[in-house]
Amino acid sequence: MTTATPDQRIKTAQDHDVNAEAVELYLRRLQSQLCNSLAALDTGPGFRTDQVEHASGRGITAVLEKGEVFDRGGVNFSSVHGDCLPAAASERHPELAGFPFRAMGVSLVLHPKNPYVPTAHANVRFFTAEQEGKKPVWWFGGGLDLTPCYPFQEDCQHWHRECHNACAPFGKELYTRFKRWCDSYFYLPHRKETRGVGGLFFDDLVLESFDTSFAFLRSVGDCFSEAYVPLVKKRRDTPWGEREKSFQRYRRGRYVEFNLVYDRGTLFGLQTGGRTESILMSMPPEAHWRYDWHPEPGTPEADLYENYLQPRIWLPEES
Amino acid sequence: MTTATPDQRIKTAQDHDVNAEAVELYLRRLQSQLCNSLAALDTGPGFRTDQVEHASGRGITAVLEKGEVFDRGGVNFSSVHGDCLPAAASERHPELAGFPFRAMGVSLVLHPKNPYVPTAHANVRFFTAEQEGKKPVWWFGGGLDLTPCYPFQEDCQHWHRECHNACAPFGKELYTRFKRWCDSYFYLPHRKETRGVGGLFFDDLVLESFDTSFAFLRSVGDCFSEAYVPLVKKRRDTPWGEREKSFQRYRRGRYVEFNLVYDRGTLFGLQTGGRTESILMSMPPEAHWRYDWHPEPGTPEADLYENYLQPRIWLPEES
Repeated sequence: MTTATPDQRIKTAQDHDVNAEAVELYLRRLQSQLCNSLAALDTGPGFRTDQVEHASGRGITAVLEKGEVFDRGGVNFSSVHGDCLPAAASERHPELAGFPFRAMGVSLVLHPKNPYVPTAHANVRFFTAEQEGKKPVWWFGGGLDLTPCYPFQEDCQHWHRECHNACAPFGKELYTRFKRWCDSYFYLPHRKETRGVGGLFFDDLVLESFDTSFAFLRSVGDCFSEAYVPLVKKRRDTPWGEREKSFQRYRRGRYVEFNLVYDRGTLFGLQTGGRTESILMSMPPEAHWRYDWHPEPGTPEADLYENYLQPRIWLPEES
Repeated sequence: MTTATPDQRIKTAQDHDVNAEAVELYLRRLQSQLCNSLAALDTGPGFRTDQVEHASGRGITAVLEKGEVFDRGGVNFSSVHGDCLPAAASERHPELAGFPFRAMGVSLVLHPKNPYVPTAHANVRFFTAEQEGKKPVWWFGGGLDLTPCYPFQEDCQHWHRECHNACAPFGKELYTRFKRWCDSYFYLPHRKETRGVGGLFFDDLVLESFDTSFAFLRSVGDCFSEAYVPLVKKRRDTPWGEREKSFQRYRRGRYVEFNLVYDRGTLFGLQTGGRTESILMSMPPEAHWRYDWHPEPGTPEADLYENYLQPRIWLPEES
């Protein structure tokens, strides 16, 4: 660690040694691994990769469109810096808004073709910011969440089991805390609905040390494939028709509403002058809106509304 | 005017007599007239009308879906009040945020089926707000703007001519001022594009008197049909195919981005607990996103990007 430059290695307000270079290396590897495991599921055209350089940073955007399994999927790595941290970046540190910062992260969104395969999102990120005359501050953030159209209870339980297992080595209470944060973060107040069945969400995270915090981030990043790939394999051959596709397009409208109205990552990206096409790769390929539509009682569509779009306990370990 | 109740008639900071009842009456008539003139264009199922009552107000939502001419269109009247004016409501009066207010307005959005017929939006609105121990403040806002996919210069000129004529009786400079405000308001910074070819936008408006201000509002509200109906009649029979429809769906993605990320009316509605289905009737029925798509040079799609999505002078009267 003695070879780290001042830029890569900063002493923080929490008096921990920070190794930003190691985080960046991990994030870039994670992006490759995610692309590989997802490309292995899809015999379509595969990922298109763009190296991105702009005034406030750089990144690698990997996007797959019109695949066999995914209508659209994106895995984005970005590293940005700026002189003026946007308000959207931190809830715990409002005093840092307006100060110099660095942010890096990997974001993933997958919109499957088959309406029985759930939409999935994951993100892991690292921030440092400094106020004049004070020590720099750092924190991690991230999580993963699942958005089914036609949900299966066992799939949701598998997903939450993997989320739980990623947290368990770092403390008994973490799963419950970050699962509930996820329920409240991915919530559309104007619809009185959660976006989906949740998973984990955390922000402004500092555990006992930088090393422990970073290990937790890796545990979350690494669990995504375990949590998601089995669900894709299990559901991708389920027959579907126009009814299911039409409902999927309608539900994707909610995904758009959440991302554009509420999502801090999206707003942060747009506010910091990030590359729009990389930020909005999270948009579904198609979204539909219908005026005042409600599912017929007793249908599978009603099951989603009645049983999956409010916070729910998935594991006995939630306490 | 002596029959007005204190609720309907308030003395304002500008010492003008305000007749909120007359504004409401006008707005309700305008909604009917707009629905009639639009329904006369469309031999489809016509408007469905919902009377809306909720904790913070009431309204009438008129929506047309799957028409012959319009994929979707909505004309919404609403009247809301609250104890706490949202920040999104006024730029000129930040000090009023958090104080009691009333707001009423008519909003209209039309998404035509034929990609050669432009999308159109209009809004007229009236606000009153009061700070403790001070006189109430009132203002008008509104405008209209046009969003073509396949633009025609003569259509844009006709649209702006009608906008100009609506302003002309109230002062020579108003068209230029509100046309430029429209260009800057309906702008997507993350795309570096205007939403369309603009029209008029004004907010926090108080002219010499309440009566003059209200007359200006009526002039703007009443000009919409003159500005738009001739364009629909001229273009609705233009043949179109999958290429044009596909581009229209893609461009509708920009409409969604603007309304959900930037539009103050949408955010105000969602923040004040308005009826979501009435607020989001502005959403297109279908919107598509494609990663990093650009039009081929020399095509009609490139013509839109090159010649219509930046502010432009349409009339010699703009000065």
